[in-house]
This record gives sequence, C-alpha cells and structure tokens, in this order.
Amino acid sequence: MTSIDPALLDRFAAIVGEAHALRAEADTSPYGQEPRGLWTGRTPLVLKPGSVDEVSRILALATETRTPVVPQGGNTGLVGGQVPHAAANEIVVSLSRLNRVREIDPLSNTVTVEAGVVLEALHRAIDAADRMFPLSLASQGSCQIGGNLSSNAGGTAVLAYGNTRELCLGVEVVLPTGEVFDDLRKLKKDNTGYDLKNLFVGAEGTLGIITAAVLKIFPKPRGREVGWAGVASPEAALALFGVATELAGSNLTGFELIGKTPLDFSLRFTDNAVPPLSGEWPWHVLIEISSGRSPEDARSLIETILTEGIEKGFAGDAAIAESLAHANAFWALRENISEAQKPEGASIKHDISVPVASVPEFIARAAVAVEAVSPGARVVCFGHMGDGNLHYNISQPVGADPKAFLDLYRPMNKAVHDIVRDLNGSISAEHGIGQLKRDELLATAPAVGIDLMRRVKAAFDPAGIMNPGKVL
Amino acid sequence: MTSIDPALLDRFAAIVGEAHALRAEADTSPYGQEPRGLWTGRTPLVLKPGSVDEVSRILALATETRTPVVPQGGNTGLVGGQVPHAAANEIVVSLSRLNRVREIDPLSNTVTVEAGVVLEALHRAIDAADRMFPLSLASQGSCQIGGNLSSNAGGTAVLAYGNTRELCLGVEVVLPTGEVFDDLRKLKKDNTGYDLKNLFVGAEGTLGIITAAVLKIFPKPRGREVGWAGVASPEAALALFGVATELAGSNLTGFELIGKTPLDFSLRFTDNAVPPLSGEWPWHVLIEISSGRSPEDARSLIETILTEGIEKGFAGDAAIAESLAHANAFWALRENISEAQKPEGASIKHDISVPVASVPEFIARAAVAVEAVSPGARVVCFGHMGDGNLHYNISQPVGADPKAFLDLYRPMNKAVHDIVRDLNGSISAEHGIGQLKRDELLATAPAVGIDLMRRVKAAFDPAGIMNPGKVL
Repeated sequence: MTSIDPALLDRFAAIVGEAHALRAEADTSPYGQEPRGLWTGRTPLVLKPGSVDEVSRILALATETRTPVVPQGGNTGLVGGQVPHAAANEIVVSLSRLNRVREIDPLSNTVTVEAGVVLEALHRAIDAADRMFPLSLASQGSCQIGGNLSSNAGGTAVLAYGNTRELCLGVEVVLPTGEVFDDLRKLKKDNTGYDLKNLFVGAEGTLGIITAAVLKIFPKPRGREVGWAGVASPEAALALFGVATELAGSNLTGFELIGKTPLDFSLRFTDNAVPPLSGEWPWHVLIEISSGRSPEDARSLIETILTEGIEKGFAGDAAIAESLAHANAFWALRENISEAQKPEGASIKHDISVPVASVPEFIARAAVAVEAVSPGARVVCFGHMGDGNLHYNISQPVGADPKAFLDLYRPMNKAVHDIVRDLNGSISAEHGIGQLKRDELLATAPAVGIDLMRRVKAAFDPAGIMNPGKVL
Repeated sequence: MTSIDPALLDRFAAIVGEAHALRAEADTSPYGQEPRGLWTGRTPLVLKPGSVDEVSRILALATETRTPVVPQGGNTGLVGGQVPHAAANEIVVSLSRLNRVREIDPLSNTVTVEAGVVLEALHRAIDAADRMFPLSLASQGSCQIGGNLSSNAGGTAVLAYGNTRELCLGVEVVLPTGEVFDDLRKLKKDNTGYDLKNLFVGAEGTLGIITAAVLKIFPKPRGREVGWAGVASPEAALALFGVATELAGSNLTGFELIGKTPLDFSLRFTDNAVPPLSGEWPWHVLIEISSGRSPEDARSLIETILTEGIEKGFAGDAAIAESLAHANAFWALRENISEAQKPEGASIKHDISVPVASVPEFIARAAVAVEAVSPGARVVCFGHMGDGNLHYNISQPVGADPKAFLDLYRPMNKAVHDIVRDLNGSISAEHGIGQLKRDELLATAPAVGIDLMRRVKAAFDPAGIMNPGKVL
C-alpha cells in the first residue's frame, strides 16, 4: 500500500520502540480520519515519540531519507491539516505522549507545557494553581496544545485575551533537520532579533514540530456575569459593542452575535431550552463580563452596559443571568448552534472575518448572495462580533434535497468569500488553511505574500518533508 | 569619500527628485549622528521618497546595483540601528515625507498610518477622533511610527496594551526587490498562512522597509489615577504587583519599580520636586489605573489596590495623586531619571528583561556583580516591573574619574548580562540590537536561532542590501 521501504519504516519504529509504533490498518486508520469526514487519509506508520529527543531523531531521519511527516495532535482540526493524504506515503507523528505540564509559575503568570497536553487537562492544572488559561474551544476535551498553537486557535475569549499566538510567549520546536530550537522564554519584552516564534505558531506543522511552549496564564476573575440583549440589526449590535468596549475594556470577555435563525435552531435542539427574552428580535447578543474585583463589580458593570445600551436605543431588551445555571443556559444556546444545524439538514459553512466596522455590510451583502445561489437557504450567522469573526453557515432550504444543496458548495463559498475579499477580510479567521482552503488561498491571495511564505518554507524545510500539501 | 559611482547616485536621486536628495555633507551629516554619539556614520546620499512607489523604485535599483540601504525614521534609536556606517558606502532612505494618517476607523478601532508620522502627531490625530493610541515614549516628539514598528518599541503602557508588535494588525512593506507586500489588514483574526507581519516588525529595517501599518486604537479612559507606594524590597513590590494585577487586570496601565537611588537623583534633578512619601523607603512603585467607566471607578480601584497592598504588608506607605498636576509630578520623577543621571557623572546602561518572578533575584545578584566590577558604583535600577523589564543603569562612584569608569563598560555589561542569560532573560528588552549588541547577540545567542534568522534574512534579502551589519 505504501511506497516507503519497509526497512525504513523499521528504522523509524526503532526510534520510539515497537510499542509506540502503530502499523496495523486498524490501529493507524483513526489517524487518517478527521472530524467532518471530508478526507480519508492513510499512513503505513504512526509514531508516538516519548521525548523531544525522539522527535528530533524522527525528523532528522525523515530529512535524510526525504520521508514526508504529518504531525498530529488531538486530530480535531476542521481543514484537514492534521491528517495524511490518501496515498499512504507519509508518516504520522502523534505528539500525544508529550503530555507533561513542565512548570506553572504563578508569579510570572506563565505555564510551560508540552504539545500533547489536552486543553481541558491544562485548564484543570492551571485551575489547581489558582489561575486560569483563557483558551476555550468546543473541542477542548480532546484537542491538544500543539495543535492549538499550530493552528493559532481562537475561540470566544479572543476578545479579551487574544488568539493562541498572543497567549504564547515562547516555543520549543524540532526543526525538519532534527535540530531543537529552544526558545522557551517567559519574557513579555524581548527585542533580540527576528520574531521566529510567531512563524511556527499558525504554520500548521509545515515548518517544524512544536514540542512545548510557554503560555500566559491569568488570575481567576472574582466576578463573572452573563447577559443577553435583543437588538434590531447588526448595526445596533455594533453600536452596543462600542458601548461595552468603552465601558469594560478587557473586562468584556465575551460579545457574541447570534441571528434569529441560529437561535431558533438552538432553542429547538436544546433540551428544556427557554428563550432568554420574551419578545422576538431579529438579532441577539450574548455578553460576558469578568471582574478581578468582586461579583458585585461584575454585576454593576454589566448592568451599566445594558442600561446605557438600552438608553441609547442600541438594545431593545436585555436580561442578566440570575445564576450560574442560568448563565450556562445562555452560553449553551450559543455553543449548541453548530450541533443544532444537523437536524435542519445539509449545511455549507464559512469561517470568515472582516473589519469590525464592516460586519453589518458583510451580513447585508452576503444574505443577498446566498439567496441568489440557493433560494430559500437559511442563513445561520453567529460568532465573535468583537473580532469581526463570523461563523457564516448556510442550512439547506426546508424540504430541499441535501445532496443537491451540497452540490452548491463551491458557488456558495465563492459568493460568500468574494464579499469577504472585497471587504479586505479573511476566508479563514480561526480554522486555518490545511487542505480545505489551500487551492483557494493560492488562487486568490496576493502573489507577493504567497511568494514570501514559500521562501520561508524553503528556508526552514528545504527537503519539503513537513506536512506537504498543507497551507502551501 | 564614497565608493558608490556618482552616476549611480544620480540615478537614485532622480527617483525622488533633486529637491529631496541630500548630498552636501552639511545636509547629510545629521543622518549619521545618533542620540548617544556612540557612532558617527556617513553617507553620500540621503533620499526622501514622497510615495510608496518611490520607495519601491529605490529598493529595486538598490538590489539591481547591490547598493546598501539604511532606512531611517526619527533617528531616535539607541542601538545604532538607524545610522549608516562610517565608510559612507550606504544610502540613507528617510521615511519622513511618508507622513499621512491614511484612515482612522473608530468603529473598528484602527488607524492606518504611514511610516513617517511622528508618534506625537499620531497621538493628536487619534485624540481628535476621541480615541487613544497607547504607545508612549520619551522620544515621542520626534520618533516615527516606522521606527517604532521596526524596533518593536515598548514603553510604559506595554503592561496593559502590549509592545508595538501587539498594537499592529497589518503592514505595508516594500521588499528589497521593490515589490510591495500589501498586508494592511484590520483583522483581529486571520489564519491564512504564515505570520509575515511579525517578521517585519522588530526587524530593524533588515528585511524591507515598512511604509505603512494598521494599528489598534482604543476608547479614551473615562478615569485615570496615579498612586505611589513605598515598599521594603523588590519581593514586596512583586507581591504588590500580584495584588494589582489580580484586581485591575488590564485596568492596570502602569506599574513602575523605582529604587531609592534613582528617586534621589530625580528629586535632586527635578525643579520643585516633592518626595511622594514622607518616610524613607528602599524601593518605590508608581501605579497607574485607567477606567472606561468613570473617574470614581478608577479612584475606588486604586484605593482598593493600595489598601489591600498595605493590609497584606506588601506596601509600607502609599499616596494617591490628588490632581492631574500631582499625577504628572509623580510621573515626572519617573521620566526624569535618565536625565537626572547626567549630573551624577558617567553611566553604563542596560536594557534587560527577565521573567517577572526573577526580578528580585536579578536585582540581588546584579548588585553584587556591579560592586565587584566597580566598588562604590551606584545602581540606578528602575523600570517596568510588570514586564520584567528593568533599565539597569550604573552611575560612577562619587568622585571617581568618568573615563576610568567608562573603561569598565565591557566587564560591567558582561557581569550584568551573564546574570540575565542565567535567568533566561533578554539583553535587549526594548531597544533592539542594531550595532550596539550585534556582536554580543551573535556570540551568546543559541546557534540554532541565529541560523534561522540568517535563513530568513537570506530568503528575504538575497542581495544583502537592507541595513547591513545591523542585528545579524
């Protein structure tokens, strides 16, 4: 099945030991499946190194023998960046055994963590140190830090804390040659040369393998409040966001825009769901406030925001969660949207961002474009308004044929992405390029930028062994 | 005086027009002088392009003819990165005429600004739009945005807002080939390939010329308070910082550590200076709080911090500025320290950072090392404690010979920097490498990192025309 010499596979397996080298189809096939089933990859060998040194020897041998390598974390990526191609000519390197939290430094507010640590496990470790790590994703029960870094994961807390890139102070990377780049620094300020760290973060495993990182952690907020507002339009939501930002600054830890359609889907889907507001609103906003001072302070801040928002006419109605359970119920309506689309039939999804000021224009123009491609299709628009990042998903028209709707995948993507590009936005705000958007990136991104990326790739991975066919 | 062919100089001058091409020694010499007079550079030609296209044609010709180019902004850099070498074989490109604020977008909270805009002029423009740009430096009256970006400038607001790198969302860069890399994006989230922006930010003009950038701006705080605390030790200051961080989060917009010696210097130097506290303290902390809510909110927050700090025994005494003038007086004592060192004689300065938790250990060990190199030398230690960034300056012993003290420059640097390296810190937290620290960087930084930087340099500037002999 593979063109890789069995004797070479033995040499790779010897590095980690047979117990950590998977070869049987039954053992390796899960590493070729990805969450949405868009690709089925195959590999003759999955290696599970137990040390940075083993990763180093694997890549040195891979470069020496020109053997392509696909690094894999929790395998939760949505663009096919973490799975091998179907030809079975790549070796998968799973980082899952590099799962130590090396050090928690509560005075510097940093954690030094290995790539294979599951995000939720990191949350628990940090919580035990009376700190918090803000990165939070739907897949946090299985995604790993190495994958979070390689995909520069986003999530709902980006508004206040930044993307994974902003949460990372230093990295340890094994280069394709096997050399180890140890840049595990805890420094907030360091102007000693080029910013190499940020090249590896978000490179989707095409420049090397991140084996560990120094991440920022934060004191736990003493107060947290969640509110819900009904608004008349995206413009009103944007104005409300302006009020919230001015008042709360980075105490504003969540500002999620939710259209009526996704809310209706989520209310239908969620057990015992209760509408947050009595009236009907075309658009909704979920607001979360955190305070380092006290619960009362968080309460007064969210009350001030919603009161000022209503007084200025930006919000029509608002409610504040009266308990933790109530707050979680608000969040569940937001978090369940993706799942709630499934019973509604086939869907075509987009992960886009535009300048915050352009969100209303994007929503208006995209609705027209979607209707033109598929009359009656239901726009499921929700996301992180404060980041200009929308999950712009389209569910099939009621009663339509799912297959026929999915056949519109490319024209629908083009219609939506053309508007994104026109607004100088991004066709992949959170999920990366991987295999899914590679051709579109190469076809539509400015040639100068693509050329610079190719120069970086050639300079760092001259043998071209790192995750070939991904990103570039 | 120069080895560059006069006919070639004419070709360069023709691009910008003779009126914007300086050749007379009297006109060009200021571009070879830098603030501290450590180097005297010379150039046969200073070009002042008036458009991105002219910058592009200059670099294209420079690459074609292998002519070295030194980009220069406000010429306020402290490591010699912005001045040509003495041999007069480099052309200086001044960005000062690219000084337009292209767009202020208050809804997206972004400004699109050209490289030659003076920082203080940007402050005024943003202020007029009822927003603020947090980057603030002693040299803001003359430093330019292009230089701020190329040196990844820091300053006192990094604690809450990050370095210039974190304040930059997108860049427009002219590459050595003359190609224009237009990445002027306003996006908070964009995962479409490698992070090229952060390679150019902080590259000190060695990879290309940044001609414009999209920067983050922020709503003006409604309340601001400045406080002063006397503490018994750096450990106590660190504990107080922990309290302030937990309570205020990014409402903590300043936390400056100041030793007794620099405070005494500053009190002697500053007209009508009044000690902030009645008692004597070995260490002092200046705290600034900003609030988006109200002046009362800022007041109550700083009172809570100082009260909790005193109750827990971290602060011995504290005062809150009772007026804007009073607040400015507190800040003046901090800002005047560098100037206040001059009447005290010769000084040897360091711009270092260590993990925040290691600040006390650094201070303790460095004091011993300094005394060993120059008995009686006075340690002028102050800086941005929250960033682990100290301006660790040494003033000569009272009555000593300045020349003899300055002869200790290298052993003093080595003694201090050896401790920094031992603590996994940075020998240039804010000011960059330039010429000043190039040899030390190459001699002491991990070889793998230097090799990666060289690969980037070779990939982006194969002709080696961009600011040669700086950084690498």
